[in-house]
Amino acid sequence: MKAFAKLRPEAGIDLINTERPKPGPFEVVVKVKAASICGTDFHIYQWDSWAQSHVRLPRILGHEFAGEIIETGPDVDPALVGRLIVAESHIACGKCYQCRTGSFHICENLAILGVDVDGSFAEYARIPAQNAWPIPEEIPLDSASVLEPLGNAVHVISATESTGNYVAVFGCGPVGLSAIALAVLSGSVGVAAVDINNYRLQLAEKMGASKIINSSIEDPVAEIRHDTDGHGAGLVLEMSGNEHAIKQAFESVRNGGTVVLFGIPSREVHLNVADDIIFKEAHVLGIVGREMFKTWYKLESLLKSRKLNPEPLITHRMRFDQLEEAMKLVGSGNCGKIVLSP
Amino acid sequence: MKAFAKLRPEAGIDLINTERPKPGPFEVVVKVKAASICGTDFHIYQWDSWAQSHVRLPRILGHEFAGEIIETGPDVDPALVGRLIVAESHIACGKCYQCRTGSFHICENLAILGVDVDGSFAEYARIPAQNAWPIPEEIPLDSASVLEPLGNAVHVISATESTGNYVAVFGCGPVGLSAIALAVLSGSVGVAAVDINNYRLQLAEKMGASKIINSSIEDPVAEIRHDTDGHGAGLVLEMSGNEHAIKQAFESVRNGGTVVLFGIPSREVHLNVADDIIFKEAHVLGIVGREMFKTWYKLESLLKSRKLNPEPLITHRMRFDQLEEAMKLVGSGNCGKIVLSP
Amino acid sequence: MKAFAKLRPEAGIDLINTERPKPGPFEVVVKVKAASICGTDFHIYQWDSWAQSHVRLPRILGHEFAGEIIETGPDVDPALVGRLIVAESHIACGKCYQCRTGSFHICENLAILGVDVDGSFAEYARIPAQNAWPIPEEIPLDSASVLEPLGNAVHVISATESTGNYVAVFGCGPVGLSAIALAVLSGSVGVAAVDINNYRLQLAEKMGASKIINSSIEDPVAEIRHDTDGHGAGLVLEMSGNEHAIKQAFESVRNGGTVVLFGIPSREVHLNVADDIIFKEAHVLGIVGREMFKTWYKLESLLKSRKLNPEPLITHRMRFDQLEEAMKLVGSGNCGKIVLSP
Amino acid sequence: MKAFAKLRPEAGIDLINTERPKPGPFEVVVKVKAASICGTDFHIYQWDSWAQSHVRLPRILGHEFAGEIIETGPDVDPALVGRLIVAESHIACGKCYQCRTGSFHICENLAILGVDVDGSFAEYARIPAQNAWPIPEEIPLDSASVLEPLGNAVHVISATESTGNYVAVFGCGPVGLSAIALAVLSGSVGVAAVDINNYRLQLAEKMGASKIINSSIEDPVAEIRHDTDGHGAGLVLEMSGNEHAIKQAFESVRNGGTVVLFGIPSREVHLNVADDIIFKEAHVLGIVGREMFKTWYKLESLLKSRKLNPEPLITHRMRFDQLEEAMKLVGSGNCGKIVLSP
Repeated sequence: MKAFAKLRPEAGIDLINTERPKPGPFEVVVKVKAASICGTDFHIYQWDSWAQSHVRLPRILGHEFAGEIIETGPDVDPALVGRLIVAESHIACGKCYQCRTGSFHICENLAILGVDVDGSFAEYARIPAQNAWPIPEEIPLDSASVLEPLGNAVHVISATESTGNYVAVFGCGPVGLSAIALAVLSGSVGVAAVDINNYRLQLAEKMGASKIINSSIEDPVAEIRHDTDGHGAGLVLEMSGNEHAIKQAFESVRNGGTVVLFGIPSREVHLNVADDIIFKEAHVLGIVGREMFKTWYKLESLLKSRKLNPEPLITHRMRFDQLEEAMKLVGSGNCGKIVLSP
Repeated sequence: MKAFAKLRPEAGIDLINTERPKPGPFEVVVKVKAASICGTDFHIYQWDSWAQSHVRLPRILGHEFAGEIIETGPDVDPALVGRLIVAESHIACGKCYQCRTGSFHICENLAILGVDVDGSFAEYARIPAQNAWPIPEEIPLDSASVLEPLGNAVHVISATESTGNYVAVFGCGPVGLSAIALAVLSGSVGVAAVDINNYRLQLAEKMGASKIINSSIEDPVAEIRHDTDGHGAGLVLEMSGNEHAIKQAFESVRNGGTVVLFGIPSREVHLNVADDIIFKEAHVLGIVGREMFKTWYKLESLLKSRKLNPEPLITHRMRFDQLEEAMKLVGSGNCGKIVLSP
Repeated sequence: MKAFAKLRPEAGIDLINTERPKPGPFEVVVKVKAASICGTDFHIYQWDSWAQSHVRLPRILGHEFAGEIIETGPDVDPALVGRLIVAESHIACGKCYQCRTGSFHICENLAILGVDVDGSFAEYARIPAQNAWPIPEEIPLDSASVLEPLGNAVHVISATESTGNYVAVFGCGPVGLSAIALAVLSGSVGVAAVDINNYRLQLAEKMGASKIINSSIEDPVAEIRHDTDGHGAGLVLEMSGNEHAIKQAFESVRNGGTVVLFGIPSREVHLNVADDIIFKEAHVLGIVGREMFKTWYKLESLLKSRKLNPEPLITHRMRFDQLEEAMKLVGSGNCGKIVLSP
Repeated sequence: MKAFAKLRPEAGIDLINTERPKPGPFEVVVKVKAASICGTDFHIYQWDSWAQSHVRLPRILGHEFAGEIIETGPDVDPALVGRLIVAESHIACGKCYQCRTGSFHICENLAILGVDVDGSFAEYARIPAQNAWPIPEEIPLDSASVLEPLGNAVHVISATESTGNYVAVFGCGPVGLSAIALAVLSGSVGVAAVDINNYRLQLAEKMGASKIINSSIEDPVAEIRHDTDGHGAGLVLEMSGNEHAIKQAFESVRNGGTVVLFGIPSREVHLNVADDIIFKEAHVLGIVGREMFKTWYKLESLLKSRKLNPEPLITHRMRFDQLEEAMKLVGSGNCGKIVLSP
């Protein structure tokens, strides 16, 4: 089969021919029908310091995808063949403390598709059968790969309280944009979207942000304090991973408020722990992935009830063989989610 | 001044002439400009068994009201005179464990306006200065008395999780209707409204219920299970106080779900504790009043952001002297909130 | 093999000869080395109304046991043979919403050993491999069956807050006694133990209760209020299932406090919902079983650190063939946990 | 009266003669009978960068004290004169969002005794009447000043879950030592105490730590992982404010665990946000002060039940006029709490 793989420790990606994967016990093989690009893929594509310390080569990239089950391994119900599914990208060991207590997504032996094992920028991908979530009929197959990052935002919002709260979102990439939509539908009384890219800020407005702040021009901390009678936001979602934004996120939260850290910084970050965490008695939550499978159930019910619509997130549709072009577009920031199809 | 008081231990109410109240330390006197009728007022009007065991006569009734501060007592800022306010109806002692730990609304020495002390079906009413909440400018004075029962619903929703959850509401009186609006705005994926009165069920639909169930005709438990693939509702709000509804509420909740008990039954209730609470591992929350003053802040921010609109709750506006007529209307169930003005 | 089974819909139990179970996929067969008697077993032995409506005959009883794995089924690591284990008695389907969101113990298709499927009052018992928890080396095999009911108490205490709280425990059977020990070790500032049996109250004192109340002589509500300056207990654990005790449990809780319902009443219960739940804003938690497997990890760490010692719970050791005698002892109430060995 | 004040922006303190304070409305004046020294006092004494940016001179230092009410201001019950009290050191405005929602200790206009207003290293001190907590009779007056820092530890433990958890405490100053005692009494399964000072590590052992780690010699992260089968501690309390310790605290926590930040670093801190917070999905809680007055109630009940004994914390007793000597002792680290008396 054809696949896009990282072969060499430098920027770029290669189109390769390789064996089609065979399903092992409890596994299925999926024909990929839609794949989308995550910021993590771009980190690896660029081969930045985070990628250098976390990825071993060679590796087929990609972890957001939807497709059709075409083969089942031992111990898997063969009737699953033909089912249209979207993949949960985290592969848990099932045996550690985290797995046996219901926190599969922070499994101590976690493998992530396209990072730790071969991924989905390929004609076929292999995943555990339990990671294959049936696509709700309300969602077209060629949009379904975005349920994975949408799930990140559902997980963020589920772990916090946005009803009646003023919410500030730093970073308007696809998960940040999804979080804006979720904050709006869950009854926040205002959502400030912060980014340095006007294209993304316009998307943020489309997702329902009540205020957009270009932090290369305006001071987001001052703007957020202004909108909240000087108190700061009750809930701040840091979705960018940018050090400067992380600092502003902490400065923007009110006493007793909550800061979610979701965006991955590529190196250590300076924090004013005394004034921004301790004296404020702030709650800080690291959030990663999605709860398996509580988040998927909640996401599905939001989609079925038409409370949440993933379409506005998708700004570009391209063919698989345009992957490099798509990566450049991600690098420019002038896109929401890009979906690739065969 | 003129006031409506309960003088005798029997159904009915009397219009009396009495002294205008004088403010004591930390108190204000308010000229009543709008008063609304609560189910509790109707319990006392009818003099049912709950009223007989909880109210000592004579008593001026009424606890939902808005008006203008016309006099301040010692230790109160005289600049408050002229301010338009809506009243928090629970008077806390400020000294017990509950008060000193931030739970004023379940003060061990709580007095409720119109129940334990004289209330607001009168030209003037006396309340502690801290119970006077400034009316947000977005809300007209003659609608502001309904912020008190709206606050009940905000408190109910704040204590539970409705985002992404299917919510069943038993009882579509004004607080039940408000809870429906709150469940909708906070991102529930479906809201089933249950009552025996079609007028109220139509109001429920107007507030955003996705399904209305007349429980004198249909089986709400079966309907709710049908809508939730057989699991039951994740969140059930019992707002009626009716024994039959309470039983159905518990039967409607899914394993691990939450039942809020808010409606006051007038006598003891039979419950199937084993199957409906223990084996389901249900969470049951008694909810009363509003958090002082966390609920008020949240309510205010929801009103200012236009997420919540109290107007549809108000189905009738009458004059103070039509109180008895209004009480009969409450008894018929063919109303939402009735607001009385001078 | 020999086994004790309920064959007929009436009080009593029969010793039978039957086939030794064979392990199916993901299952193991265990040679039973220690089995203990639960109140549920006694309900079924007596054939009371709860048993009549929940158990289908014939059925081998028993669900608390420890032993040695002697055979493994397909898809199970054969190296497990020879391992000493204690059984988790709840068999979850692994496929429902509860199972896929980490709440196996309230699985919608739950089967309980000795209730829904054949149990452990037998020479051999069959369980899913994942229900076999290795016995910590600190615990002798012939005491290990009591880890199952100890786990109930760990689950109760984990779901509530006892540190710095005054705790009242209604019902001093083995799980009530275990809950007393857990409340003491987790820093409660007082533990009142309530029962009508002096033998059990003396055991309660041995487990660390700071006060014992024989509710056939003294009024537990008055005593608990006296000890808490009139406020009531912050945490009340209802472990008896007795209707009278359930009512007293609710009357004993302070405003804003928590009542755990664990003891199974055999029929519906009258509750004063208005005064005891709503106006107090009480939290009521139905608790059943143990979290799979969070409770087991916590229990194991408490045992290994010597914070918790199961031995005082075991008041009688008997041979399997003395089961009927043991049942009569359970009926008298003059025992803690009875452990049966071959 | 005599008082110790910081007059000049440099290290040191001056003994001055000044007016005895007069009580304003809602205030009392207390004759100081016991005062103890906090790390914050030492920061100000040394005039480090934190002190330079947070304290305006001149200022009478000190905030931990106990004494006798000798005068009451307007609106205070004169019967309070003669009462023995310990002071809550945080003075809240009573009007901001935090105050009106029960979080006085993170009041947006907070003033701290000895930092923002004149404190208690003086013959007399003035505080709001509501900040005067009656000394429980179980506690001698000359030990009562330590209830204030003990309360910090009660607040830390109340905000987290230590029952059945392995707890690591970084920093064994008086609040760290108190937290060790609290973690032990609330049922932790192991408490690792980390410091670089052997005197303090020996005190930690006396308070019940199951393991002491001198981090200038041993690697605390490796030791804690070793004790927890490689997983890390479920709860980590950072009580030192030292940057190196803060980093180790984050490295020591298990996936899904909780880190409390209590010790105040004097400047910004580098954190590995990606690996230590996000991928672990850690919860980070800034904790400051004590809940007013939930913590005080809990502390009092722990003292009255003899679960908690403050005496071992007090290693030195000195006279007020030995304050400078006491400060030097604090600087050496070779002390627990030092209590000064007239």
